[in-house]
Amino acid sequence: MMKLYDVELSGNCYKVRLFAALAGIPLEIRPVDLAAGEHKGEPFLALNPWAQVPLLVDGDVTLRDSHAILVYLASRSGAMAWWPSDAASQGRIVQWLSTSAGEIQSGPASARLVQKFGYELDKPQALKRSASILRLIDEHLARNDWLELNRPTLADCAVFPYVAWAPEGGVSLEPYPAIQAWIARIKALSGFLPAPGI
Amino acid sequence: MMKLYDVELSGNCYKVRLFAALAGIPLEIRPVDLAAGEHKGEPFLALNPWAQVPLLVDGDVTLRDSHAILVYLASRSGAMAWWPSDAASQGRIVQWLSTSAGEIQSGPASARLVQKFGYELDKPQALKRSASILRLIDEHLARNDWLELNRPTLADCAVFPYVAWAPEGGVSLEPYPAIQAWIARIKALSGFLPAPGI
Repeated sequence: MMKLYDVELSGNCYKVRLFAALAGIPLEIRPVDLAAGEHKGEPFLALNPWAQVPLLVDGDVTLRDSHAILVYLASRSGAMAWWPSDAASQGRIVQWLSTSAGEIQSGPASARLVQKFGYELDKPQALKRSASILRLIDEHLARNDWLELNRPTLADCAVFPYVAWAPEGGVSLEPYPAIQAWIARIKALSGFLPAPGI
Repeated sequence: MMKLYDVELSGNCYKVRLFAALAGIPLEIRPVDLAAGEHKGEPFLALNPWAQVPLLVDGDVTLRDSHAILVYLASRSGAMAWWPSDAASQGRIVQWLSTSAGEIQSGPASARLVQKFGYELDKPQALKRSASILRLIDEHLARNDWLELNRPTLADCAVFPYVAWAPEGGVSLEPYPAIQAWIARIKALSGFLPAPGI
């Protein structure tokens, strides 16, 4: 079985667990003890020199990034409703994988790292970036039930965790009614996997 | 013909122009006047409410993100050597699209935005992140001629611009011999498109 090196409170890990639950893809979950520095020592570093979770190991395929794992799992498992093979659908979804790796990571995800876990990052800048990206997402969701393709895709799985966890970074979702409605739609999906605080 | 809204000195735009040149994909280049604020007014905002370049318009497909455009162009043009359709290859390449949107954007790309264009970003943090990500990339390239699949792919096109432009942000590439050798390999590719300073 595919093995996911996982940290429960990591939004990047939660992206993968959430999608696997929604698409019915079995994963062996292998918790990594960040507090003990397990990710910074062997044998983990030999698997991932980047010292990060999530990490997926499937035979001779090892992937160190949440979005790469989403794409791989969908394609390998034939869950093509979540990641269609045509150019336009893939392009549309990849837009949100970039937004997730960029604006969301440096916005609400970073604000949460400071507030909940004490990381030494620039909290005011993270809050400013959160306001900017959440407004854009809210405007998009005011016109669309789902981020792309009028149905749940990898885009929603990638964006959901750190947006839903934004209040843990001191970022209220009150000003964003379309985001709140979208969160409710995702929670109502068959197979939805909750996480602590969500 | 597909139309690319473009800024010559934007690394995100250069990713797209570079790949299109290497793969022989014709694009109509439509320069956007950032200095005049063209991206913040109509009619551009109607095309892209995110007020960003690059933007690709191809019939009814509009894409606002460099990595999304790379994936779309490769798939639409049948340039599958750069973006194979199998799960493992796509997963491996997407790792680097995330690295490009995340660590490279907040590292060398941000350092360059401060130093060359006067953006108000945290330069010391950008330099620290640059050192961290360039070391990881250098170690990877010390073992591999190309980022993935033992040949040029979308991964290389996504990572090349801001890494090659790192010195414009005050980040020397002297400590990274494997990156320097990789830059030389990319420059030697048939169809390589130079950019100012590269």
